[in-house]
Amino acid sequence: MSEVIVQPSFKWQRQDGQDIKVKDWICPVAEMTEEPQVVVLGVPLSRSSISASAASEFPSAFRKSWELFTTYYIDEQVDIRDLRVADIGDVKMHTTDILQCHRNIEEAMQEVMQKHPQSFYVSIGGDHSITAPLVRALREGKRVGILQFDTHLDLRDLSNGPSNGTPIRQLLEAGVVQGEDVYNIGLHGFYNAPSLIEAAKHYGVNMITLKQMRSKGAQQQIAEVMAALQEKVDFIYVTVDIDVLDIAYAPGVPASTPGGMRTDELFDLLYEVGKYEMVRAMDFVCIDPHRDTSELQTVKAVTYAFLTALSSRYIRTIGN
Amino acid sequence: MSEVIVQPSFKWQRQDGQDIKVKDWICPVAEMTEEPQVVVLGVPLSRSSISASAASEFPSAFRKSWELFTTYYIDEQVDIRDLRVADIGDVKMHTTDILQCHRNIEEAMQEVMQKHPQSFYVSIGGDHSITAPLVRALREGKRVGILQFDTHLDLRDLSNGPSNGTPIRQLLEAGVVQGEDVYNIGLHGFYNAPSLIEAAKHYGVNMITLKQMRSKGAQQQIAEVMAALQEKVDFIYVTVDIDVLDIAYAPGVPASTPGGMRTDELFDLLYEVGKYEMVRAMDFVCIDPHRDTSELQTVKAVTYAFLTALSSRYIRTIGN
Amino acid sequence: MSEVIVQPSFKWQRQDGQDIKVKDWICPVAEMTEEPQVVVLGVPLSRSSISASAASEFPSAFRKSWELFTTYYIDEQVDIRDLRVADIGDVKMHTTDILQCHRNIEEAMQEVMQKHPQSFYVSIGGDHSITAPLVRALREGKRVGILQFDTHLDLRDLSNGPSNGTPIRQLLEAGVVQGEDVYNIGLHGFYNAPSLIEAAKHYGVNMITLKQMRSKGAQQQIAEVMAALQEKVDFIYVTVDIDVLDIAYAPGVPASTPGGMRTDELFDLLYEVGKYEMVRAMDFVCIDPHRDTSELQTVKAVTYAFLTALSSRYIRTIGN
Amino acid sequence: MSEVIVQPSFKWQRQDGQDIKVKDWICPVAEMTEEPQVVVLGVPLSRSSISASAASEFPSAFRKSWELFTTYYIDEQVDIRDLRVADIGDVKMHTTDILQCHRNIEEAMQEVMQKHPQSFYVSIGGDHSITAPLVRALREGKRVGILQFDTHLDLRDLSNGPSNGTPIRQLLEAGVVQGEDVYNIGLHGFYNAPSLIEAAKHYGVNMITLKQMRSKGAQQQIAEVMAALQEKVDFIYVTVDIDVLDIAYAPGVPASTPGGMRTDELFDLLYEVGKYEMVRAMDFVCIDPHRDTSELQTVKAVTYAFLTALSSRYIRTIGN
Amino acid sequence: MSEVIVQPSFKWQRQDGQDIKVKDWICPVAEMTEEPQVVVLGVPLSRSSISASAASEFPSAFRKSWELFTTYYIDEQVDIRDLRVADIGDVKMHTTDILQCHRNIEEAMQEVMQKHPQSFYVSIGGDHSITAPLVRALREGKRVGILQFDTHLDLRDLSNGPSNGTPIRQLLEAGVVQGEDVYNIGLHGFYNAPSLIEAAKHYGVNMITLKQMRSKGAQQQIAEVMAALQEKVDFIYVTVDIDVLDIAYAPGVPASTPGGMRTDELFDLLYEVGKYEMVRAMDFVCIDPHRDTSELQTVKAVTYAFLTALSSRYIRTIGN
Amino acid sequence: MSEVIVQPSFKWQRQDGQDIKVKDWICPVAEMTEEPQVVVLGVPLSRSSISASAASEFPSAFRKSWELFTTYYIDEQVDIRDLRVADIGDVKMHTTDILQCHRNIEEAMQEVMQKHPQSFYVSIGGDHSITAPLVRALREGKRVGILQFDTHLDLRDLSNGPSNGTPIRQLLEAGVVQGEDVYNIGLHGFYNAPSLIEAAKHYGVNMITLKQMRSKGAQQQIAEVMAALQEKVDFIYVTVDIDVLDIAYAPGVPASTPGGMRTDELFDLLYEVGKYEMVRAMDFVCIDPHRDTSELQTVKAVTYAFLTALSSRYIRTIGN
Repeated sequence: MSEVIVQPSFKWQRQDGQDIKVKDWICPVAEMTEEPQVVVLGVPLSRSSISASAASEFPSAFRKSWELFTTYYIDEQVDIRDLRVADIGDVKMHTTDILQCHRNIEEAMQEVMQKHPQSFYVSIGGDHSITAPLVRALREGKRVGILQFDTHLDLRDLSNGPSNGTPIRQLLEAGVVQGEDVYNIGLHGFYNAPSLIEAAKHYGVNMITLKQMRSKGAQQQIAEVMAALQEKVDFIYVTVDIDVLDIAYAPGVPASTPGGMRTDELFDLLYEVGKYEMVRAMDFVCIDPHRDTSELQTVKAVTYAFLTALSSRYIRTIGN
Repeated sequence: MSEVIVQPSFKWQRQDGQDIKVKDWICPVAEMTEEPQVVVLGVPLSRSSISASAASEFPSAFRKSWELFTTYYIDEQVDIRDLRVADIGDVKMHTTDILQCHRNIEEAMQEVMQKHPQSFYVSIGGDHSITAPLVRALREGKRVGILQFDTHLDLRDLSNGPSNGTPIRQLLEAGVVQGEDVYNIGLHGFYNAPSLIEAAKHYGVNMITLKQMRSKGAQQQIAEVMAALQEKVDFIYVTVDIDVLDIAYAPGVPASTPGGMRTDELFDLLYEVGKYEMVRAMDFVCIDPHRDTSELQTVKAVTYAFLTALSSRYIRTIGN
Repeated sequence: MSEVIVQPSFKWQRQDGQDIKVKDWICPVAEMTEEPQVVVLGVPLSRSSISASAASEFPSAFRKSWELFTTYYIDEQVDIRDLRVADIGDVKMHTTDILQCHRNIEEAMQEVMQKHPQSFYVSIGGDHSITAPLVRALREGKRVGILQFDTHLDLRDLSNGPSNGTPIRQLLEAGVVQGEDVYNIGLHGFYNAPSLIEAAKHYGVNMITLKQMRSKGAQQQIAEVMAALQEKVDFIYVTVDIDVLDIAYAPGVPASTPGGMRTDELFDLLYEVGKYEMVRAMDFVCIDPHRDTSELQTVKAVTYAFLTALSSRYIRTIGN
Repeated sequence: MSEVIVQPSFKWQRQDGQDIKVKDWICPVAEMTEEPQVVVLGVPLSRSSISASAASEFPSAFRKSWELFTTYYIDEQVDIRDLRVADIGDVKMHTTDILQCHRNIEEAMQEVMQKHPQSFYVSIGGDHSITAPLVRALREGKRVGILQFDTHLDLRDLSNGPSNGTPIRQLLEAGVVQGEDVYNIGLHGFYNAPSLIEAAKHYGVNMITLKQMRSKGAQQQIAEVMAALQEKVDFIYVTVDIDVLDIAYAPGVPASTPGGMRTDELFDLLYEVGKYEMVRAMDFVCIDPHRDTSELQTVKAVTYAFLTALSSRYIRTIGN
Repeated sequence: MSEVIVQPSFKWQRQDGQDIKVKDWICPVAEMTEEPQVVVLGVPLSRSSISASAASEFPSAFRKSWELFTTYYIDEQVDIRDLRVADIGDVKMHTTDILQCHRNIEEAMQEVMQKHPQSFYVSIGGDHSITAPLVRALREGKRVGILQFDTHLDLRDLSNGPSNGTPIRQLLEAGVVQGEDVYNIGLHGFYNAPSLIEAAKHYGVNMITLKQMRSKGAQQQIAEVMAALQEKVDFIYVTVDIDVLDIAYAPGVPASTPGGMRTDELFDLLYEVGKYEMVRAMDFVCIDPHRDTSELQTVKAVTYAFLTALSSRYIRTIGN
Repeated sequence: MSEVIVQPSFKWQRQDGQDIKVKDWICPVAEMTEEPQVVVLGVPLSRSSISASAASEFPSAFRKSWELFTTYYIDEQVDIRDLRVADIGDVKMHTTDILQCHRNIEEAMQEVMQKHPQSFYVSIGGDHSITAPLVRALREGKRVGILQFDTHLDLRDLSNGPSNGTPIRQLLEAGVVQGEDVYNIGLHGFYNAPSLIEAAKHYGVNMITLKQMRSKGAQQQIAEVMAALQEKVDFIYVTVDIDVLDIAYAPGVPASTPGGMRTDELFDLLYEVGKYEMVRAMDFVCIDPHRDTSELQTVKAVTYAFLTALSSRYIRTIGN
């Protein structure tokens, strides 16, 4: 029995048959008979946010949305149900000790890796602070590259603690990751202070604006980043801060902005990402269900993005 | 006096003059002196929806939005007021007997055709179940093609009755329409279960994803479909399920999704559709005004789409 | 002490340092030691709207949003803080006498010009009726060109008073501006009555639809308009009616429509506009904060657009 | 044909029979064969509000709510359909000239009185500024008492024009009404500035707080006020500012407050008011449908209150 | 395996211990080892509503709210966890055949009674049409009294089918219940048409207005009704239409009204009701979660009311 | 310059004159020339909440609401502007170290006491965890009584850290306060788990349900509690958890419930509380502005309550 992972607070009544929903397909790990290929881990922490956030409610909202999706991806005419995806539950959190929460996240990720060393790991935040302990756990002495989709650099200094504005800075300062191995796609507008640009330049972080990505197209942009990373690192971690999306497409984030990415662009980018074997883990962070519309616009967008990334991953697997 | 068609519950105070609104232009059929070229029929039925829906309220919301639009289409520099459009009222519904409702819809469409045999018919749903009785009434032994804009195939089997998930299946099973004569444009994502894909393949329904349409462009896509259909069928029925639109553009539908069509794309597609004489009838379905934003985003989108389709139709008419 | 300009009802606690927000940068005019290059003037009038509007609340909402933006524009890698921007306060309004309000606006603009003859003037509405007194004040006997971003022509006749549907008509009828010097970009759909088209043609107003702009691209479109204007006029006034944006991107306007411009398109257009020295003044009108979403989608879009226009202006300045 | 009264912009499809709705009962005046006992006049003016308000939309929202109410008042077991109530339309408004609007209101009320000298007049605002021209029209040289239900005194001085904060002050300053003949019921909390209290004391306005009313009960409170007024005045005008209600019961007003009256208390008070023959006219003001909940909580409360006042009036009539 | 009852679509992860939530206490019937004292049955039908309604979603929303309540009732200082309450699932519904749904409800209730003949039955609607089949199933030839909390009489004639406006009429016309055995508490305002009053008088239904109840107090009012009923009937059915509550307390119903009951009054009334052994079954109907506030105001009120009724029932049990 | 207190992020443009608003009256402490009688301290901490909360945004929302209130209390006919109330700013918070935040709160309160030893202290939360450090700072070795208005006991054990469910438990366990000196008014319903009741009994906390308070009335209830406390303690601390209010009156709290207190009851209770000199400090906690209605219903209720408590305090002062 794990000390740091708890089961989610509700379980679906699962069904078998020709037409299953995502809720019937993603399996509580305890009920799985074969080794999972993908492990989903909930990380319900948002006390570490600079502004008030209910991102801690997202893992639960994410799971509830599974009844709205089937396993068939019509764009590529493929049923991905044979991909074995396990829901391993949520990292246990402490109410007032945020550093303890971060230690729990790191420990939980380690535990998951020990039990399922060959899996692809998808962590569901929570705010962006969770990326730091997740990457620390995953590294194991290897060289790790980070592909970040974000409107912000998340390079704030650590004087105010390991908040959601700092994950990349934490990893750089601790030497866990090298600046030249970080690629941020989606930057735009007036949302990054000069000191963060300075920090990015100091560490050598690669900044790719939304306009630059658009002029290349998703496929070529990802191909170029992957080519560069593959020469340098042992594996790649992908972190998706949903505030990279435009406020018209994702109102349910604490710092939603106009001028951001469209959902179809994010889906295309993640579909490309899923094609690369070196991508070992991924997270989705900074979704606040309390700010979402009554039709769950933002929650549905994340689940769609998640499934898109799994689809190309699955196609690659069966292609081999 | 019709048994199955009732006047809507409110009437506009109509005005004449240089600057009329759509409400002043579309005329109650009783007040029309010449034969109408277009007939609008309200079909306020949503009891037949699988999930709870207030789509029954849409014909009324649609009419109310007429005061927000003029008759001048600035994109093409044309005033379409000379097109004679009649509002013939709503199909009478029964509170508890849905099959009776469907019989009423079929009968009402027949009655409309008898009275106005040369008109173009636009039906305002209501949920998607209404398409089946409408097409049954229109067929009259001829071969009919269906051009469907939809995120879903609507090919569920009929074990649970003639619900909004089944209209195309009903028509296929009853032999009213042939699968090869059905073209669905706008499919995307994880919203169609494998059994529906099976059914589509079994019947030979033509599936065109949103991505495929985008890579061709609206004009060429419609041209290709029309060319194919014109060789096979006697006339074409167009059904627009508004859930084909992205949730950012049309939140007011019962199953709104991210990754869908933009409104400007739908307007372009329907403008192309209006150019073809073989298109005999059209419907707009699955809009739930109770889910719409306070600014009526979805309702306005449908009225705009409707007017766009009429514009090219009118231009074609005067061109002759 | 001005008779017609009042300080806004709250002041930010301003900060200095490496990372300042827009609120720390735009300076109350009284605290400025050098001559401002840009002057921001609030014009909180919306009683003159045809439909009920709270656009009078926008200058305050605009200023509050300044804490959400930094001075660094990452798309162009430039910090614009050295541009000297002064907030000069709000035009004083009368509760019931709208003509008095319009006289106050005109007088306030004159006062601003006398005090700051070399500045670039940005007025924050308010509804669109404010453009007429602003242009009257700015003209000073010169020939003025108007570049208008709008879904509507705003050429209603004046029989019902100088409302928000009439500013351009007022200026044309009074001979303040010539029709051939007015360029309206962004027209689309069924929102302009035939009489307005007539008026536009009568006066020779240049109508450029959204589709026409899209087929050219922002850069070329603006270049063409500027080239034409530069041959005719002494200076250019830019008026941005935020209802030019699509309802999905800017729900918080009194007449929001589907089929409109995207925010990224508006940002690109205004970035181009800022490159031209002949542009002497600009306004943003018709934003109703009471209709905006809880995440302030529309307010944020305007502030972003405003900053984009200042950025290219600043780059031009330092380039000289 | 009246110059200052216009028909509302929509008309109900009226029905006869055993079970009519209020919409089938209140009759357009043109369709009435007998002299009306009650005349309803819409006064869609809210440009005169100090803060932005869409109270101008209320007459239309009020009429639409008529389909939600029957004519049978179950509390008193009485069907009030035999009371002849006529809807005479809306006062014509000018878009930008507020004083003209006030003149139109006064003229419209005079016209109504000439045509229907024996009726009871119910005016539907609009903001509170409309009470002044209405009372001016009604007075005809007689002594008039005012019974006001309001959280505010509405005694602001006139330096900023005849806005919605001034109606009682206007009438007092012009000598149309005497301060001792004004009774304000429902005052509470921190919403009246000292200068208004001064003014109330100066003119001798009777201030009755909500707590005082509650300790007496509705019946006794109204009896006392009526007894006092009947000795002094020729007739009584009742003005109901819906902001007298608590924000939990009436969120849809521009200045809603906690600590206000409950709806059942207002219904009881107006039921008592309806018992007195000296009450010649009544208005309901300051309801902003744009601020109301999606379930129309505030609109429904006003219609209910209106019907309650008519019920006791009708019972008195038939009792004679 | 039941033909007409299905398990709800999700199950809670239940917990034991000192502090359990209602979700940990109410037990799926399959997991219960002793005979349940209370059986909860979901009845997700709202197609039978006259106006569009999502009351079919309420059984699910009701169950989800169980995690917000503990088993300790602090008003009476009692922990009710020893009361054995079973969740038996939902009645199976047909998508388009409403009469079949009603037959399923009747059959399901019969099945529940056969399996658990000694239990107290609580049905969770769904709209008010469900009361008719439920009572038909329960009667078994005995004389049944009905205590109804409702703003409406629900006595519409059956010409438009067995809708939610007709349940009491159905039972009276079929002779299942006698008019004199029906007591309706909570009537008020202008919401019952004359024909319904006629029907109530014809059948001898006892009408008790909200004002009458208030003047007596909850305890005495219930005592009087119970005393009268106990002399006449074999057992009592309680039906709670949540539209009996004021719109300020329960906005989430299709026909919410001002002037209704407060929640604390309903809790007091149901606490009294729970004291009487003759009360054999109860339902809660007409809650539409799609209309509820984001804080779930209406859903929480129903769960609170339900627990209050169980509390006095439990106290009575242990008192014996 | 304080280390732990920061100025709020905006300042009002203050005005003098006969009619000032609360914003013109409550003075930044730096601008005050005489010793303040009341000190307001913002405590923007809500990371310590068990469920996600934006209560950290409340001090700012509270201050913004000051422009909606005057200084004249019409219920008691008193202008309270001569009471000297200082706004001392907000306690400085750390982004990730919650224990540091609690230390800052304690230190800030100590600093305030040193500078203003004779004042009455009003702290504006934040969540309920702030009460513990505030009381610790205030005690100074004396015996302190606590009067708590709350739906919950807030006696959770400390195994999960000093969260918002624990403040009273913290104080009891640490011996700062004795159980018999704590009086909780407003308990109701099913919101306190058995273990908390156990704890309350173990420590001797006085539990007074809402029903008990109602049967006594506000005046007598407070008189009894004060009489009991005055014999035992040196001074009294009042803590107002706004979730004591009914969800219809205060939707903007993280755990809003039906069956709670009305605002007028809370105003009456706090008016009574203000009469007692022994009350040395007060806090208002657990208001989440993100959950409030667009009309700011909850925020306005707190400001009203705050002013009511100051009013009786002021009357007592001038009465001496």
